[in-house]
Amino acid sequence: MIPRYSRSQMTAIWDPQTKFRIWFEIEAHACDALAELGVIPKESAANIWAKAKDVTFDVERIDAIEREVKHDVIAFLTHLGEFIGPDSRFVHQGMTSSDVLDTCFNVQLVRAADLLIEDTKALLKALKRRAFEHKMTPTIGRSHGIHAEPTTFGLKLAQAYAEFDRCLARLEAAREEVRTCAISGAVGTFAQIDPRVEEHVAKAMGLKVEPVSTQVIPRDRHAMYFTTLGVVASSIERLATEIRHLQRSEVLEAEEFFSEGQKGSSAMPHKRNPVLTENLTGLARLVRGMALPAMENVALWHERDISHSSVERMIGPDATVTLDFALARLTGVIDKLLVYPENMQKNLDRLGGLVHSQRVLLALTQKGVSREDAYRLVQRNAMPVWRGQGDFLTLLKADPEVSKAMTPAELEEKFDLGFHLKHVDTIFRRVFGAN
Amino acid sequence: MIPRYSRSQMTAIWDPQTKFRIWFEIEAHACDALAELGVIPKESAANIWAKAKDVTFDVERIDAIEREVKHDVIAFLTHLGEFIGPDSRFVHQGMTSSDVLDTCFNVQLVRAADLLIEDTKALLKALKRRAFEHKMTPTIGRSHGIHAEPTTFGLKLAQAYAEFDRCLARLEAAREEVRTCAISGAVGTFAQIDPRVEEHVAKAMGLKVEPVSTQVIPRDRHAMYFTTLGVVASSIERLATEIRHLQRSEVLEAEEFFSEGQKGSSAMPHKRNPVLTENLTGLARLVRGMALPAMENVALWHERDISHSSVERMIGPDATVTLDFALARLTGVIDKLLVYPENMQKNLDRLGGLVHSQRVLLALTQKGVSREDAYRLVQRNAMPVWRGQGDFLTLLKADPEVSKAMTPAELEEKFDLGFHLKHVDTIFRRVFGAN
Amino acid sequence: MIPRYSRSQMTAIWDPQTKFRIWFEIEAHACDALAELGVIPKESAANIWAKAKDVTFDVERIDAIEREVKHDVIAFLTHLGEFIGPDSRFVHQGMTSSDVLDTCFNVQLVRAADLLIEDTKALLKALKRRAFEHKMTPTIGRSHGIHAEPTTFGLKLAQAYAEFDRCLARLEAAREEVRTCAISGAVGTFAQIDPRVEEHVAKAMGLKVEPVSTQVIPRDRHAMYFTTLGVVASSIERLATEIRHLQRSEVLEAEEFFSEGQKGSSAMPHKRNPVLTENLTGLARLVRGMALPAMENVALWHERDISHSSVERMIGPDATVTLDFALARLTGVIDKLLVYPENMQKNLDRLGGLVHSQRVLLALTQKGVSREDAYRLVQRNAMPVWRGQGDFLTLLKADPEVSKAMTPAELEEKFDLGFHLKHVDTIFRRVFGAN
Amino acid sequence: MIPRYSRSQMTAIWDPQTKFRIWFEIEAHACDALAELGVIPKESAANIWAKAKDVTFDVERIDAIEREVKHDVIAFLTHLGEFIGPDSRFVHQGMTSSDVLDTCFNVQLVRAADLLIEDTKALLKALKRRAFEHKMTPTIGRSHGIHAEPTTFGLKLAQAYAEFDRCLARLEAAREEVRTCAISGAVGTFAQIDPRVEEHVAKAMGLKVEPVSTQVIPRDRHAMYFTTLGVVASSIERLATEIRHLQRSEVLEAEEFFSEGQKGSSAMPHKRNPVLTENLTGLARLVRGMALPAMENVALWHERDISHSSVERMIGPDATVTLDFALARLTGVIDKLLVYPENMQKNLDRLGGLVHSQRVLLALTQKGVSREDAYRLVQRNAMPVWRGQGDFLTLLKADPEVSKAMTPAELEEKFDLGFHLKHVDTIFRRVFGAN
Repeated sequence: MIPRYSRSQMTAIWDPQTKFRIWFEIEAHACDALAELGVIPKESAANIWAKAKDVTFDVERIDAIEREVKHDVIAFLTHLGEFIGPDSRFVHQGMTSSDVLDTCFNVQLVRAADLLIEDTKALLKALKRRAFEHKMTPTIGRSHGIHAEPTTFGLKLAQAYAEFDRCLARLEAAREEVRTCAISGAVGTFAQIDPRVEEHVAKAMGLKVEPVSTQVIPRDRHAMYFTTLGVVASSIERLATEIRHLQRSEVLEAEEFFSEGQKGSSAMPHKRNPVLTENLTGLARLVRGMALPAMENVALWHERDISHSSVERMIGPDATVTLDFALARLTGVIDKLLVYPENMQKNLDRLGGLVHSQRVLLALTQKGVSREDAYRLVQRNAMPVWRGQGDFLTLLKADPEVSKAMTPAELEEKFDLGFHLKHVDTIFRRVFGAN
Repeated sequence: MIPRYSRSQMTAIWDPQTKFRIWFEIEAHACDALAELGVIPKESAANIWAKAKDVTFDVERIDAIEREVKHDVIAFLTHLGEFIGPDSRFVHQGMTSSDVLDTCFNVQLVRAADLLIEDTKALLKALKRRAFEHKMTPTIGRSHGIHAEPTTFGLKLAQAYAEFDRCLARLEAAREEVRTCAISGAVGTFAQIDPRVEEHVAKAMGLKVEPVSTQVIPRDRHAMYFTTLGVVASSIERLATEIRHLQRSEVLEAEEFFSEGQKGSSAMPHKRNPVLTENLTGLARLVRGMALPAMENVALWHERDISHSSVERMIGPDATVTLDFALARLTGVIDKLLVYPENMQKNLDRLGGLVHSQRVLLALTQKGVSREDAYRLVQRNAMPVWRGQGDFLTLLKADPEVSKAMTPAELEEKFDLGFHLKHVDTIFRRVFGAN
Repeated sequence: MIPRYSRSQMTAIWDPQTKFRIWFEIEAHACDALAELGVIPKESAANIWAKAKDVTFDVERIDAIEREVKHDVIAFLTHLGEFIGPDSRFVHQGMTSSDVLDTCFNVQLVRAADLLIEDTKALLKALKRRAFEHKMTPTIGRSHGIHAEPTTFGLKLAQAYAEFDRCLARLEAAREEVRTCAISGAVGTFAQIDPRVEEHVAKAMGLKVEPVSTQVIPRDRHAMYFTTLGVVASSIERLATEIRHLQRSEVLEAEEFFSEGQKGSSAMPHKRNPVLTENLTGLARLVRGMALPAMENVALWHERDISHSSVERMIGPDATVTLDFALARLTGVIDKLLVYPENMQKNLDRLGGLVHSQRVLLALTQKGVSREDAYRLVQRNAMPVWRGQGDFLTLLKADPEVSKAMTPAELEEKFDLGFHLKHVDTIFRRVFGAN
Repeated sequence: MIPRYSRSQMTAIWDPQTKFRIWFEIEAHACDALAELGVIPKESAANIWAKAKDVTFDVERIDAIEREVKHDVIAFLTHLGEFIGPDSRFVHQGMTSSDVLDTCFNVQLVRAADLLIEDTKALLKALKRRAFEHKMTPTIGRSHGIHAEPTTFGLKLAQAYAEFDRCLARLEAAREEVRTCAISGAVGTFAQIDPRVEEHVAKAMGLKVEPVSTQVIPRDRHAMYFTTLGVVASSIERLATEIRHLQRSEVLEAEEFFSEGQKGSSAMPHKRNPVLTENLTGLARLVRGMALPAMENVALWHERDISHSSVERMIGPDATVTLDFALARLTGVIDKLLVYPENMQKNLDRLGGLVHSQRVLLALTQKGVSREDAYRLVQRNAMPVWRGQGDFLTLLKADPEVSKAMTPAELEEKFDLGFHLKHVDTIFRRVFGAN
């Protein structure tokens, strides 16, 4: 988590103040439930809320206590006691540190997921707007980096929309994976605390109860969460890579937005680098790499060991902050992307009509020319075009053997872009619905 | 994919014969749709089915053709033509190789998911049976590998059940991710083929249409599939690690089944190695490692490049075959696991009752002893026990200062295992439902 | 390890026959040492060699025995006994299975490294030849995919040469990492066997003794081996990516060799796909992914557990076979790469000389023009060029304000490619030495 | 990089102040070389040193400038100019930003490697001391977590020593990998700057020249660096896992040091958790995970793209800081490890002598008993021992059939630990040398 690649809303989730706030809420809600069950006095539960609900915790003070007692939750409770007074003895009763730590971590991950979901929706909105804007902007489709057949720039963006729409569903599933609360004691048996406390706190914090915990919430949930982030990052890389390709000097069909004031733009007008999407490519690598330790965290020993903790202290903030930043950056890139339809057309035309050779070949055979002959005819007109000697349609029209099979009008029809775009509507309906 | 770690049902899915069978079905269903649309004669479509639906393809012959034409789909179509005769010119009309390849790969992955889902259900059944068998078998719960508080062996298995129940849902979601069909042509525009052909084939093959493809089906779907397999593998590692721990010479609370006939068992009766679960640990590493290239496969260039292909040729079979084998092996291990309740009890007792020290401490304070004094009292009786000098309960009863606060009966009550097991029913209900 | 991406020399190393041959050699050399130490009769040791040194082992028979005794080394020894007769009782004396298995695995890895080293040398040879061939072939250097300054195609290849020269050194270091032999017994104490046996076998098999083993050879060695393969694979990906870029329709500065006979080449002459380098990109992902389980294999429990075994059964062959295939394929690609200097020149020229704008700017300031003015002058002549309205040099010459500072000859000098190529010799000397 | 897992010496390397200091040195040394070559005035070069060599850079001011000009190196140079005055126009002449950035990054990585090497030497020292201390402390060797044969605790540590000695060599090789300097301009052709400047700066900064760079230093070097860190981390995990196992309640052969004052130690004397080594296990996962993005960074596009940058901004500090912390923590753990030889002996004895069954079996056959009979005899005495009914040696002595073959003294000899320890000296000599 480095400032350069962070946004404040997400970093706030991982702020110590936020963490202590969540800890307090878990403890206070637990007190409510304990009071309801008659374990502690109702006035004490009320007093705990009253005394601390508007408090700003002194993070440095808590850190100082932790250095002494070497225990983060005890340090917090000690500090909390300074606000609450005698009733603080009712706080954390029958609970174990992990009850607070694990439930808090899940609250943070759920909130992080909420932001990532919001980010993705913003990205989808930008993709949709630009997709409709360029729904019928013809561009060459490429397989293997080689010109294949025409498509539209809108279709490229519709594909990205459909992909991030899947990512949205995945993020929602990932959010649901970690949306659990555990207040179940040292090995998860509820020996010291009634399961109804867990139920109450879960509800109050917007979580479900963890059906069976073992001091800790099982880490397969978190593995699923972080691998999902890795997949979303990979989709970011895909779209970023597309833009990097489109911005190459030789292609130049689109460019990241470049503000007029940006230094050096005019003396070297060609030197506009796709630095944002290159950056996104790197960020995707980072998020993807964090999926691995998350998966290795699953196999804790027996009821729990604490090896997952150092991993999560790092990847919890790092993966969510980086992905949030990346999604927002990508949204900005899409939103302001400079699109050059004329260059798309120029590239479409640059092979002198050869992208239509397949259609001509097929048409010839449909006119009764044998496959071998059709192939020979296409070939002898394609080769000069490839060597830069003429235009494919012109040469075909001038070829007497071709002319015997097809009229000029029939040939021209085979060079019609409309042929390739006739199902764009269908695809858009599939992706964006009936609107 | 090595025979040692393979099961035939799963390897059959990846058999060339199966692949060619699926290719044929895709092509033949497409012919039906083309015939319905009037593009090709209905009799030809019917004839294609009639001539090839019961054929065993000659894999070696297809390979030989491929070596010549350097194209796998063309090689297959050539061979198919040998069965079908003149009508074979209607096969594959307007289609592109990827239409066949990608749709087939997804069919294979869906079938593989079906087996993995079945495997997981079998594992769940075994876990449930053993969990109920040992629902009330007391055992020590361990955090950090250190004795913490009592739990039951059934709870351990209930946790595993809940975890694999989540894995089941994840596998079902992964199956749904890849359950799509694309027959959309060179860059996905349906230029040469009507989208209704795709719809027909999808339905016939048990798939959904891919809303927008670009010659290829987008690989974020497959990334999600293979990372899910990685997470399931990690859960396998967790349970395997638990059993490896339980089988350690010093612990010996459970053992992998060891057939009487197995060599060397009696002269070195202690030397029963948990080789199956160690093996599962290694297999988990393998499946997890395959999640990475799957994620790197997402960012294909433009409408497609073919870098994903070599990756999928390897991890497609390897990940599914290995995970299938691992799930089945784990089911066998659980099913026949030798469980030693008496050793569990022995381990529970081995620290002379010190696992109850927390409860005694709490009880003393509840009896009005100050926290400092209670701590001192527990401490002075715990230390001799720790040094092997006596039993905790006996020493506490003999301590006059303790006796002032608690009667022998009250002390004994604090050593009652029932205290720890009182909510087992609740947890089982959460995990297994009301039954 | 799939036939499509395998070469026979490497797969032979992993053939069961080869493995059994190495096992035999280890056992027979150990017998020599044991005979020398007087533990077994010298005639028996001689007889063991005599009876089995030319034998072809019956792999199916060994497999059948293994299915019965469930132990691979015992199965082999049983089969070996069928050849050797009574003296077979002296074979394997005081040894443990891992002594044979681990030493054999290292022999295989060393031989695999030998092939990979040979492969890399062949690649270096091809790179060097093509680098000198194109030492002075000008081409545009690109940063961020955007035209930057001129370089030469030879320099690109010299960079690749230097990179694979480092890979060569790394492979040699990796070979050295695993070049050890352990014959040290059940926990590595040599309780049942004299360390001199290990020394003898090590020497005979071309290995060093493992200073301290614990039944197994420590797996940090293998982790280093497989991560090195991952780094080499990444370098393959870099060069493959370069070629894929150069072959793009809009760039077309180089192409993978395309044999005249290859189907479809002439009717769609533009549709030559860089399928070999795309394939290499995928293979690189596979090899890289195998570095992870290799690193997870390091932390075996206590003196050994067997979790590494399943991992190595798969990645041992897969990583080496795949990398061998990839290196050879890349060598072929480089060797026969079609290079188009005229297209390189065309791309160099395509921005109308704008790549020289920096030099002009600098020259103007050196002529005493203020930085602000120089920038303004360059800018006002660059912008029309960028919009396709003219050639940069022509416009500069026609600009009166520029003319005041620089003569036409001085301007022309700034457009001289030679300026950029003057240190090519120096760099080549650094990379290829004095020749 | 989070404070909890950081040490100041390593974080200082990644401090902005340090970075700017290195940038300055690179620029100033380059000026010296340029002055020597007559490109800039010697007095100016001298003045640049004089004015800025003792300066503390104002990081916030540089950041503020960067926000404006959106370029980190220009921001720095602007700030530098504020100290140097007019001569600042000679700074950075003919250089490109990457010349400074990449060379600086390598300087930082070299310094980081120096610390890691120092850390490893400290760890080796601790391991050696403890290994000699426990050279002859008998303990049970375990394969598969099951008792196998005796070894010594010193041998365990000698193994770790040998492993980290290899890690030391690997770190030294990794340091050498990245010890290069590039000052070669926009695409590495030295068009604007003489290669002798690079040579001078390299020497002055303790680096070698990069033989061929392409604006950037090739990232295969860094991939090798970070994967090496991943392997070292895996070795840390191995030793940490060993200690976690030894500290388990049922084993308790060693414990992490636990200061008397640490809360809660006496009331629950058994609850000393191996939290440091568990933490190390998690840190190892983190460092290992960073090897992947480092390998993905290798395949930059053409002469460079900037996707590596975001990755390195994170893993540069994170991997080195985390590994430095982990090595130091492990050294502390080893240094102060509480070792319990009496518990080792107790565990050795806990299977009633069954660990010697193999030796007895062998001895019987050497006495002329057939293998089948020997096996039967051992078996019938081993089984009762396994069931807790007696001691193996006693039972063997009492077995008349055994007595016929072996005297009590002969039997006792087979239970002698000395047999297993006779080659400890040899192994120590191999690992630690002749001393």
